[in-house]
Amino acid sequence: MLKTAKAIPASIVTSVTREPLSGSKKIYVSNEANTFKVAMRHIELSPTLLRGSGDTAEYEENEPVRVYDTSGPYTDPSIDIDLNKGLPKFRKDWIDARNDTVQLENFSSDFTNQRLIDELDIEPFENKPKPRIAAEGKNVSQMHYARQGIITPEMEYIAIRENLGRASIPQDQIAELTAKGLPKEITAEFVRKEIAEGRAVMPMNINHPELEPMIIGRNFLVKINANIGNSALGSSIDEEVEKMVWSTRWGGDTVMDLSTGKNIHETREWIIRNSPVPIGTVPIYQALEKVKGIAEDLTWELFRDTLIEQAEQGVSYFTIHAGVLLEYVPLTANRVTGIVSRGGSIMAKWCLAHHKENFLYTHFDDICEIMKAYDVTFSLGDGLRPGSIADANDAAQFGELKTLGELTQKAWKHDVQVMIEGPGHVPMDKIKANMDEQLHHCYEAPFYTLGPLVTDIAPGYDHITSGIGAAQIGWYGTAMLCYVTPKEHLGLPNKDDVKTGIITYKIAAHAADLAKGHPNSQVRDDAMSKARFEFRWEDQFNIGLDPDTARAYHDATLPKESAKVA
Amino acid sequence: MLKTAKAIPASIVTSVTREPLSGSKKIYVSNEANTFKVAMRHIELSPTLLRGSGDTAEYEENEPVRVYDTSGPYTDPSIDIDLNKGLPKFRKDWIDARNDTVQLENFSSDFTNQRLIDELDIEPFENKPKPRIAAEGKNVSQMHYARQGIITPEMEYIAIRENLGRASIPQDQIAELTAKGLPKEITAEFVRKEIAEGRAVMPMNINHPELEPMIIGRNFLVKINANIGNSALGSSIDEEVEKMVWSTRWGGDTVMDLSTGKNIHETREWIIRNSPVPIGTVPIYQALEKVKGIAEDLTWELFRDTLIEQAEQGVSYFTIHAGVLLEYVPLTANRVTGIVSRGGSIMAKWCLAHHKENFLYTHFDDICEIMKAYDVTFSLGDGLRPGSIADANDAAQFGELKTLGELTQKAWKHDVQVMIEGPGHVPMDKIKANMDEQLHHCYEAPFYTLGPLVTDIAPGYDHITSGIGAAQIGWYGTAMLCYVTPKEHLGLPNKDDVKTGIITYKIAAHAADLAKGHPNSQVRDDAMSKARFEFRWEDQFNIGLDPDTARAYHDATLPKESAKVA
Repeated sequence: MLKTAKAIPASIVTSVTREPLSGSKKIYVSNEANTFKVAMRHIELSPTLLRGSGDTAEYEENEPVRVYDTSGPYTDPSIDIDLNKGLPKFRKDWIDARNDTVQLENFSSDFTNQRLIDELDIEPFENKPKPRIAAEGKNVSQMHYARQGIITPEMEYIAIRENLGRASIPQDQIAELTAKGLPKEITAEFVRKEIAEGRAVMPMNINHPELEPMIIGRNFLVKINANIGNSALGSSIDEEVEKMVWSTRWGGDTVMDLSTGKNIHETREWIIRNSPVPIGTVPIYQALEKVKGIAEDLTWELFRDTLIEQAEQGVSYFTIHAGVLLEYVPLTANRVTGIVSRGGSIMAKWCLAHHKENFLYTHFDDICEIMKAYDVTFSLGDGLRPGSIADANDAAQFGELKTLGELTQKAWKHDVQVMIEGPGHVPMDKIKANMDEQLHHCYEAPFYTLGPLVTDIAPGYDHITSGIGAAQIGWYGTAMLCYVTPKEHLGLPNKDDVKTGIITYKIAAHAADLAKGHPNSQVRDDAMSKARFEFRWEDQFNIGLDPDTARAYHDATLPKESAKVA
Repeated sequence: MLKTAKAIPASIVTSVTREPLSGSKKIYVSNEANTFKVAMRHIELSPTLLRGSGDTAEYEENEPVRVYDTSGPYTDPSIDIDLNKGLPKFRKDWIDARNDTVQLENFSSDFTNQRLIDELDIEPFENKPKPRIAAEGKNVSQMHYARQGIITPEMEYIAIRENLGRASIPQDQIAELTAKGLPKEITAEFVRKEIAEGRAVMPMNINHPELEPMIIGRNFLVKINANIGNSALGSSIDEEVEKMVWSTRWGGDTVMDLSTGKNIHETREWIIRNSPVPIGTVPIYQALEKVKGIAEDLTWELFRDTLIEQAEQGVSYFTIHAGVLLEYVPLTANRVTGIVSRGGSIMAKWCLAHHKENFLYTHFDDICEIMKAYDVTFSLGDGLRPGSIADANDAAQFGELKTLGELTQKAWKHDVQVMIEGPGHVPMDKIKANMDEQLHHCYEAPFYTLGPLVTDIAPGYDHITSGIGAAQIGWYGTAMLCYVTPKEHLGLPNKDDVKTGIITYKIAAHAADLAKGHPNSQVRDDAMSKARFEFRWEDQFNIGLDPDTARAYHDATLPKESAKVA
């Protein structure tokens, strides 16, 4: 594989995967005013043989297949990337132009400032940017702009991106709907309206200007998230940066850094500076490391500093387990698997130890103040999600869900963006109820689920048990699907596992798009099927989600080149 | 692995996988009259530590998990198996006792008789049994018995097997129903009634007395089929016998031998004689080999001889593409992928070449006469199934489905058992209609589908694209799911692919059982979840569908023994 391989001595991250996907090239679609370009991918196809052979052969061209591209600049060989400097700050001018932020000379987090003077056993990111924050009295969330009727460049970008640049309708018009209720074309005004009404979120911290704007909402393409992150058991910073690049290469729309090992702050900096997609975190994980793993020692002040630390680095969404209320904890006592959410069990432990209400709940308005100063999106955690088929859809789970709805309205009063996390382990016949309850109790805020796994009996195959549930709940309206790898419940995923998880979830998300009748989503299926019918093997490999594996499988049986055109 | 490794010189099949599954032992449950035993599998669990440690530790026992077992005698190390003699003829006494069959001195098929004198380049199965056929004027189908109110030992066996031996209700009573309409306990009378009314089939040719009776119907556990078979590209007889054993080891309920290469007759004989599960075939494949691949040269006489040849070997169900009518062929002209079913395209070619109605349709009553003389079950093929998302649920597909319904009623007039094959490639929102149309037009005959694949864009992962569809359609009522391996559309599956296909489909079938509310299906999930909550790692591996892979994945991260009990 082509790799960036710069000999920069100070760097600990020297290379990531950069080869374009097989048969693909990067294209850029400009907006009407030609002020910016949206990256997409063209899968180029060979022509169809109509008749004849050799010199007398007659061919018909096949249009390239245009697909949504999450891989950022890495798959464009013409772009020079210096991992030590990070990706180009794509969105900086837009943020500057709004003139509602200030750049700070120093970081606002005590922890960050301490790390800057601490002696570290790794090489920190040397070009760490100074933090930006909303100017006094300003709210920089995209929801805030949307509610004032402002179409931001980010919204316009998303409209073109979601639309795959195929429509030429004026961007300030509202889109017509398909028979199934999805817009025929995505317009910037449609994006604005969905954001204003809370049905979609655009996670994009002003301190992550490197990211390519994207949207999560049920009237848009279904998105997927990949989890990465180190642990006490190991993994280095360069492995994590490569995992992030690898995840976005195969289709990860967002990446969550769930690091719980050493040097969490520095690992995250390296990841964000080089990430073309929004990064999410669970801040309580890092907070817990700061108190040496003793949940009872957590305090609001420490947590608040962690939020600010991460917000000033550029994390775009925070999982916050503010719905784990003291009153719900006893409801989990008779469960088969108790509380399986790590964040949920940390907060339950804290609540019980202090016999106090969850400080994330009591300080929710304070958290909102931080979120709107950087435009961090809430991902309200389902700390009481079921960890087994037996516990699905129980009183604890649905009790918490109602509280998440109450918090959604609270956040929306601050014009802060919100999505809601969902389960978990749910048999197929109980999946629909999860979606219905969520839409009802959380006022249509986007749903973001882990799977759900539709059975507990297949460790080693939980990408599949959960992919089945993910496809279904995606069809029912879940906006983003958090992937599960084959190592779920067993160990830490390696790069192969990450890829398998991503591809499985791209299948689930795409199947959901098809079932929802997303305009043009079937174009790729049709191109594949035509290539299949015409035995254009190379095209079949390249149109697929994983050309490399398809080609290798084909060649294992029919290795000859001739077998690919016959 | 433990293998049978007998040094029998004449044998070409010397060994198959025989090790019991990790943590499991074979148990046998007797019927009330103690006249036969039903094999099942016990997964043995370690106790739960209640409190203390070392000498003061207090434990609570965990009951073994009892699961349905398709692996036959191979996983019982106490049974001596001679592959050259085949498995014990389990069902012979029952067939004899009915006194409605005769044993022939010679085979009724010209082709078989020719093969017996031909010089072969392989070693045929040397203990080939003489064929058995219904006595003059008799009908030996289980449906025929059922309709006369007879509960056969096979039905009683199935009741105990489906019920996992857990109920002690009298076997001649009808079962109570659960809230979701499934029986709380399976009784032999319930089995009889379902067979009599055509809602279920028991594929069990009288010439396959080695098989363990099983049932396919939507009021029973969802079943899965694995395809094996050689091709012009290769694979030996012993590889195919091992694939059959391997398939049943991991949960294949039936196996289809789709051989299209050399020595099809002899390969099938080796497979059937050693198979504990029903074997299905697509007889037109072998018929086509007999006319050197020229579809136009097929005749009813040649096909009839092929049916008799295979019926006298013991094939339990035949895929018959009798619904591909001349009038439907033009309906496929504008499809993206035309006719993708191999059997369908063979018959379409024949119809067009001769401009005559499909001879399988015109000779359907003649075929029924053969079926009832051996108790072969129809699997009415969907020769016009969609091969792409674009072609799903079209006029050709549903036209053929109606004809399959007409043929179902014709077969039922002969008391011949029928199941109906279904697609294929179908987006999620169109799956339910397939089930509804099939139930309506085919009078609730069991549905047997290939997937369906819910998107076309993931070659290399079509076990997953199809597993998503299979789980859904199984929940909606499909009785058997035909597996798809990762090599689908790309090449020939190897043993690893077969296993991956089976495990994926066991997940889909089990998820469907859970969603349908099959009594006791959640027992295994609950045992897994309890083991997970208590960190009993070995139990988690063993309860799972694939203990070997789960253990290997765990050990890749946490190799130490101590990590499995902490």
